[in-house]
Amino acid sequence: MTQATNDQFLLAARPVGLPKDSDWQRATPPLGELADGEVRVKILYISLDPAMRGWMNDARSYVRPVAIGEVMRAGGVGVVEESKSPKFKAGDHVMGVMGVQRYWTGPAEDKGAMLARVDPNLAPLPTWLNVLGMPGMTAYFGLLEVGQPKAGETVVVSGAAGAVGMTVGQVAKHLGCRVVGIAGGEDKCRFVVEELGFDACIDYKAGPVQAGLKQHCPQGVDVYFDNVGGDILDAVLTRINMKARIVICGAISQYNATEAVKGPANYLALLVNRARMEGMLVTDYAARYPEGVAALARWMKEGSFKSREHIVEGFETFPSTLLMLFRGENLGKLVLKVADA
Amino acid sequence: MTQATNDQFLLAARPVGLPKDSDWQRATPPLGELADGEVRVKILYISLDPAMRGWMNDARSYVRPVAIGEVMRAGGVGVVEESKSPKFKAGDHVMGVMGVQRYWTGPAEDKGAMLARVDPNLAPLPTWLNVLGMPGMTAYFGLLEVGQPKAGETVVVSGAAGAVGMTVGQVAKHLGCRVVGIAGGEDKCRFVVEELGFDACIDYKAGPVQAGLKQHCPQGVDVYFDNVGGDILDAVLTRINMKARIVICGAISQYNATEAVKGPANYLALLVNRARMEGMLVTDYAARYPEGVAALARWMKEGSFKSREHIVEGFETFPSTLLMLFRGENLGKLVLKVADA
Repeated sequence: MTQATNDQFLLAARPVGLPKDSDWQRATPPLGELADGEVRVKILYISLDPAMRGWMNDARSYVRPVAIGEVMRAGGVGVVEESKSPKFKAGDHVMGVMGVQRYWTGPAEDKGAMLARVDPNLAPLPTWLNVLGMPGMTAYFGLLEVGQPKAGETVVVSGAAGAVGMTVGQVAKHLGCRVVGIAGGEDKCRFVVEELGFDACIDYKAGPVQAGLKQHCPQGVDVYFDNVGGDILDAVLTRINMKARIVICGAISQYNATEAVKGPANYLALLVNRARMEGMLVTDYAARYPEGVAALARWMKEGSFKSREHIVEGFETFPSTLLMLFRGENLGKLVLKVADA
Repeated sequence: MTQATNDQFLLAARPVGLPKDSDWQRATPPLGELADGEVRVKILYISLDPAMRGWMNDARSYVRPVAIGEVMRAGGVGVVEESKSPKFKAGDHVMGVMGVQRYWTGPAEDKGAMLARVDPNLAPLPTWLNVLGMPGMTAYFGLLEVGQPKAGETVVVSGAAGAVGMTVGQVAKHLGCRVVGIAGGEDKCRFVVEELGFDACIDYKAGPVQAGLKQHCPQGVDVYFDNVGGDILDAVLTRINMKARIVICGAISQYNATEAVKGPANYLALLVNRARMEGMLVTDYAARYPEGVAALARWMKEGSFKSREHIVEGFETFPSTLLMLFRGENLGKLVLKVADA
């Protein structure tokens, strides 16, 4: 059954600015025999996430950089094809950090891959890379634990039509907050309001974000969940309320910067408003993922919560598909489809 | 007893950059009769604080701007010369927001002046503008409530030889922390280490702050109390530990900026380290000042805590003396002496 060779994207060079084709190298090493305790997973969907850009830099961060010549790190979901471990059997569906390749092979207990069984009856496989996966958990715990929104407060989220943003906004609606998204383009804004039920969405491509905030957040901003950084973070800082909480989850506007990152010039609004800005990382909440999955899956089943994936087919399109994230071309969680189940 | 006229510095124009002489106007209105409930205070010492620069701008902030033609806002300490209020009697020493003038006249219960009796036997009058006044309370509650240092942690404070910084560092030493100051010049650094007992002090004028932090904070930075902003805030961000807390108390490096404020370009260190940056304002802790005063006065009495004021004589020197703050020329709390007791 197993093909004779794998197919992989290796990091060939550290990108300057947006990753170029020449920053990648294709490799097709043979698929060897499994050792005791190992499994082989046929990868079906690969998660494309803004954080991947950071992993390509040679910089101290929360995980080690991807080495030159190493398979690019990525989350994915797939099906176990062969197993010499009692933990998984052939046919099991699993998610994990399996890299940009067609097959993942290694110990079932591998600390890097963190394989976990997923239930395709609870939600379609791509949803396990989205609402029920890392982005969903990031949104759920980041909003609840760091943002700490209360009913009636105003929550603003940037990257509102992206993987994390769509869940932040919907969770905040479930909590009884006023929810205002920020996204680029009419289609995304319409989706966020009409499909996801946000109260409003500011199109940052259509005009100044500050004016949009003034219009749509008449009571100011109590919680801002920031996925983008840059000028939008600065605009929100001008509208925060006393004791506001800003969750720093990402800064996609800055990930490909070739000059210095733009720091938030209006950060002294934190002083004036006794507000705070706090970073979060989803893996700190790993022990509580089942709680997050259960809550989000229940809402989805009840029909009060939507997941949306933007699926692009074709393993070989990886280099250009990844760039869609940084060009804001995805509506929903960007997923690369590698193979049929 | 009462002189026939007052002597005041009014704000004549909103400064661009450092305040100039022409931004001030001198006025000598007559001192009228007291109405019922009013007191007249002869001001002895005026507090010169970095925050005063912000009050001169026409910008929304935590207090309203000083109006053009209005007496410049400032804290001070003085002696009650006449009273038609049962709250104070002639000879009482009081502190309050009495402005840059020789006499303050108004209702004893005035909400703006917030007059409070001080005990000159507990500490000399200038100390009531320093360790036992706003700067001390800012340091005490900002460090304890927002910084939340624990014994054994490393606390870094900028503006270490200034009014707030000297108290932050000494309180942190009392809590069993490793304390590293940042200050400009050898004299200030020597003072902070030899007189105040900090573990080390980095002279930002002598070399890169980042190298100093690497040397003096081998375990990284757990709490950073920021009085200066700008490049120093950015340097500290590169050395923070997991779950670090940054207290945003001020940003003196930016108060006279004529271009946009420099935001902290390294703010994504908050994300990587799940750290937070939080603003604080001393007036939020007004109800607890007696607790802070009691603690600091007790340590001073025991000899384990020092207060240091930089006293400049002469009411008329106000415009140039104020600039000493922004040129880093004061060692200790800058106080203007107006009259003998």
